Amino acid sequence: MIVSLKPQADVARVKRELATRGLWIEAAEERLRDGRVTYVIGTYSAAVDARELLGIEGVDDVSVPTSGHPRVDRQGPVVDVDGVAIGAPGAPVFLCGPCAVESEAQITSLATRLSASGVQFLRGGAFKPRTSPYSFQGYGEAALRWMRRAAERTGMKVVTEALSEAEVPIVAEYADLVQVGSRNMQNYALLKAIGHTGRPVLLKRAMSATVEEWLLAAEYLLVYGARGVVLCERGIRGWDAGTRNLLDLGAVALLAHVHHVPIIVDPSHAAGRRDLVAPLARAALGAGAAGLLIETHDEPGAALSDGPQALLPDELGALLQSFSGMSS
Amino acid sequence: MIVSLKPQADVARVKRELATRGLWIEAAEERLRDGRVTYVIGTYSAAVDARELLGIEGVDDVSVPTSGHPRVDRQGPVVDVDGVAIGAPGAPVFLCGPCAVESEAQITSLATRLSASGVQFLRGGAFKPRTSPYSFQGYGEAALRWMRRAAERTGMKVVTEALSEAEVPIVAEYADLVQVGSRNMQNYALLKAIGHTGRPVLLKRAMSATVEEWLLAAEYLLVYGARGVVLCERGIRGWDAGTRNLLDLGAVALLAHVHHVPIIVDPSHAAGRRDLVAPLARAALGAGAAGLLIETHDEPGAALSDGPQALLPDELGALLQSFSGMSS
Amino acid sequence: MIVSLKPQADVARVKRELATRGLWIEAAEERLRDGRVTYVIGTYSAAVDARELLGIEGVDDVSVPTSGHPRVDRQGPVVDVDGVAIGAPGAPVFLCGPCAVESEAQITSLATRLSASGVQFLRGGAFKPRTSPYSFQGYGEAALRWMRRAAERTGMKVVTEALSEAEVPIVAEYADLVQVGSRNMQNYALLKAIGHTGRPVLLKRAMSATVEEWLLAAEYLLVYGARGVVLCERGIRGWDAGTRNLLDLGAVALLAHVHHVPIIVDPSHAAGRRDLVAPLARAALGAGAAGLLIETHDEPGAALSDGPQALLPDELGALLQSFSGMSS
Amino acid sequence: MIVSLKPQADVARVKRELATRGLWIEAAEERLRDGRVTYVIGTYSAAVDARELLGIEGVDDVSVPTSGHPRVDRQGPVVDVDGVAIGAPGAPVFLCGPCAVESEAQITSLATRLSASGVQFLRGGAFKPRTSPYSFQGYGEAALRWMRRAAERTGMKVVTEALSEAEVPIVAEYADLVQVGSRNMQNYALLKAIGHTGRPVLLKRAMSATVEEWLLAAEYLLVYGARGVVLCERGIRGWDAGTRNLLDLGAVALLAHVHHVPIIVDPSHAAGRRDLVAPLARAALGAGAAGLLIETHDEPGAALSDGPQALLPDELGALLQSFSGMSS
Repeated sequence: MIVSLKPQADVARVKRELATRGLWIEAAEERLRDGRVTYVIGTYSAAVDARELLGIEGVDDVSVPTSGHPRVDRQGPVVDVDGVAIGAPGAPVFLCGPCAVESEAQITSLATRLSASGVQFLRGGAFKPRTSPYSFQGYGEAALRWMRRAAERTGMKVVTEALSEAEVPIVAEYADLVQVGSRNMQNYALLKAIGHTGRPVLLKRAMSATVEEWLLAAEYLLVYGARGVVLCERGIRGWDAGTRNLLDLGAVALLAHVHHVPIIVDPSHAAGRRDLVAPLARAALGAGAAGLLIETHDEPGAALSDGPQALLPDELGALLQSFSGMSS
Repeated sequence: MIVSLKPQADVARVKRELATRGLWIEAAEERLRDGRVTYVIGTYSAAVDARELLGIEGVDDVSVPTSGHPRVDRQGPVVDVDGVAIGAPGAPVFLCGPCAVESEAQITSLATRLSASGVQFLRGGAFKPRTSPYSFQGYGEAALRWMRRAAERTGMKVVTEALSEAEVPIVAEYADLVQVGSRNMQNYALLKAIGHTGRPVLLKRAMSATVEEWLLAAEYLLVYGARGVVLCERGIRGWDAGTRNLLDLGAVALLAHVHHVPIIVDPSHAAGRRDLVAPLARAALGAGAAGLLIETHDEPGAALSDGPQALLPDELGALLQSFSGMSS
Repeated sequence: MIVSLKPQADVARVKRELATRGLWIEAAEERLRDGRVTYVIGTYSAAVDARELLGIEGVDDVSVPTSGHPRVDRQGPVVDVDGVAIGAPGAPVFLCGPCAVESEAQITSLATRLSASGVQFLRGGAFKPRTSPYSFQGYGEAALRWMRRAAERTGMKVVTEALSEAEVPIVAEYADLVQVGSRNMQNYALLKAIGHTGRPVLLKRAMSATVEEWLLAAEYLLVYGARGVVLCERGIRGWDAGTRNLLDLGAVALLAHVHHVPIIVDPSHAAGRRDLVAPLARAALGAGAAGLLIETHDEPGAALSDGPQALLPDELGALLQSFSGMSS
Repeated sequence: MIVSLKPQADVARVKRELATRGLWIEAAEERLRDGRVTYVIGTYSAAVDARELLGIEGVDDVSVPTSGHPRVDRQGPVVDVDGVAIGAPGAPVFLCGPCAVESEAQITSLATRLSASGVQFLRGGAFKPRTSPYSFQGYGEAALRWMRRAAERTGMKVVTEALSEAEVPIVAEYADLVQVGSRNMQNYALLKAIGHTGRPVLLKRAMSATVEEWLLAAEYLLVYGARGVVLCERGIRGWDAGTRNLLDLGAVALLAHVHHVPIIVDPSHAAGRRDLVAPLARAALGAGAAGLLIETHDEPGAALSDGPQALLPDELGALLQSFSGMSS
């Protein structure tokens, strides 16, 4: 945003009025032709109605950027996934299950326990993006079927990741909410293919995406037909070795309270450590998260992927229990 | 931590036992002489008692690093500042006031209102570290006197920053808790000088310090005589322009729940935006913060420093009120 | 790497021997059962032959990790692209052309001028990954045909990006070297599809990939059939606004001199600024780059993508001329 | 920089003219009162003369920010240190020696060998900033005396770090060029104290400082009396474990070619690995560095600090020899 001043404006007064509204002056520039003052307002200023600034004495005009993601802006803070609202005030949703679906017995047993704890979405990987080509890559369509049946038996919704354009139709057939993983946030071919299915989408943030790049990826999904987009913060690239990733709850607060976009937090991938999942889950709800994605496994030691960060179903149940008294 | 295996160990079984305890195998290495397997345990693993791992079948030995900050480890989760405990469970402390102390009238009036809202520490800058040599650098000793008198009248404690070795004695005379700013976290001459005063210290994290570097800076303070150290997370260097800094609540959770060190969060500097102070304050308490440092000003528009991120006393009062029902 | 010591080892002496070889001791750990010392060697130590350490007096054993990317390690420092060697000592290759191919006339005219300057690879975008869904997305197959014809007329090779699994066959038909863009470095479905074509690949680094993640992405390509992989550093996510991205020439030196992988540098995307392309190009060759990818446009003002960072053909010619006297 | 357009400006034409000059349009904003277009020019645009933009048809006015560091801007690209010019074209300077000065014999012997290789500045630590309070902290004033005598015998200049305000006078007495370490880049009390001595200063970049913050720290030094400031890039905080820090040669190119400030590069701290010092040294000179700071030790294994990254005097000699044919 740019605020340009009138020739004889009382500069100190304008500055005061801007600061009063929580606006930072990032740069005070001088117009070469007429010497008048122009202020560039910093991007981490409080959100204000730009029109209101026109009323400040001494302000000549205010320039505002056009949003690059009009469809995201219009979407609103709640996305409905086949009857389950994500983003409704005071009603966080929970998306839980194993990193990878390992057998029908496993996912069925887990679904029963998770559902009993109030978890609405069963999550599990059928197609797994793995850093190494030599790691287990998921059971594919079979896992989708197991998850679907387990979800239907328990009245849960299914959320699972699509990795490849070729697999999008089959994933969309089995999933209520299609996940885009962080490695694919800017895989535009995949975003277009998923958009075409019309399904609502859970869009994880790329390792070092800005909030704007993330919202533009969401815009791709909506432009190409997705029925709704929910974002998911899972930690970004950090340099401290005590946690797996760097959980950016400032971005969560910004998305929830300024952009009004439903935003889920994944404390399991963020911390990588089971002993920090509970405090970071509480923190996420405090920041404005619409829900939590928490890895849960009945036998973390035997998990084919990411076992060390998974909670046991009982630990998860106790955690969710602790939220019932909290208002987000 | 390193786990070395016995010659005929059942490798799959050991892996399972480690994952069950929340331990990541960062690298599986092979001993050149005898071909035995050695595991390097990843730093973002859950904290466990290493001795307990000796009981896993197939484990030969476990190597553990010595802590580089034994005094910090021994300090415990609570620091007493002249009768006010920082870190007591369920009793967050609040440190509030203006970025810079601007007059005795200002600080006296603010102290009265903050104290009425339950704020225990009056904070304000007398000596200000400013990125530009041409910015206002604080009212110095006069501001210290104003703050001290205001605090005594209202039964509050004083927390304020020491910038220079030469000013340490005068700051220590007026402050109950001496602050080290983020730019000086590794200014060892200053840490030593402050340590020598014996005062308890509030140590802000440097812009890109690791948790380990931060704890080692705390160790300097304790080695040189500080009576206690409280850490303060104020956001680290990030790349997203929507917030001023990147609030690292993963580090807060780690310090509170694994290192058991009292840790304060400053959501004002972290976000830079007044409209996100409340959600990030809630998030911080959820993550395990022992208290909050929140910039408060009676007239943000007229502030000599950082006005746009300050809350009005009434806004702060309402925020603190909202915490009374929360359990941290 | 882990170095374990004998019971009565002279610890100071072992440390001296390790430091003499450029090895950092990241952690000195104590074995719980027998109290012996174990050293974890830091990852930024000089590369040494681990077997040689067994000869240090006092060293009991040395453990070494297995590489996760054996095929990349075996590939060697030179990749042949249909007769043009990338990575041959003292013979840097140049990959130049417009960000997006805009017409047959444009690419034909550019190819003629670039070829005359000694450029071996014509690069240009047919399918463009764009952050916004509303930006120009490339002329697709038509652009591939234009580029192919222009290259054949001038004896150049074609390098261009494949964005989508579905387009891989057509891109592989027209390109001598298939590019994977930074947004797709961990798009494993795409890596597999490109690997299957058998073509050599130019793999750009993701915005915040570690060198290890990058090498593992290269491993995917080789496992699935790519004839060779050349890496390309194009700047990573940074926080300084004076350059578009943060060029990591430390990673380039590491890949060239320690991993012995052919590595190209793209100073155009790294800096974003035309006035820094020349010094960063020189720097890249100094660090060990096997070649340079430089955006070149005959009319940067009219470019449909990234014009401000493109050089004019004459500027490029002068730059390449200046390298002839340099030994890399 | 802000470019505002006339009411009926041909927008496409203006954009073309801006891109032709290497200018990025970061945001196109709309003026609320009159609907006219305003462009915010991106900070990673090529440097241009803003007045020249006034001549573009359709441009109404151009606003430019005032520099926050006028004294740095006026200083120019060369700083004279008692007869040795740092920043003279084609004449890189070398600052070499051990991380810590360990004895008079050591530094005398090293000085003789370094001087013979063409090194102009003897560097060595007398007061050492160490991350741990339990590490060796330097031999203090004795080390200063040893270094001074060694330098005088060999006709070299002395560069060494001042850590504490209290030590500034003694360091300034012995040093020709006073170093500010990266941990103290924003220790304003120290900058003021060093400025007061009038000495020229070598200012290392803080771990995550922006270029602007770094230049403002230099401005402090000049405002308080320093005779000249030379910057030193030594690697910033990165996330890749293969190098100790992340060498930012984009910043070096920016400082050398756009800000015209003399800038030294320290490849030893940047890489941490002896095997990458040579390629990164070459890269630094290519990017525009005015000189190199390279740790050199006659017995790296016995060094009291940072031995693994030091070169032997012979290795350094060979490296400097290899530069004689290069033009920077």
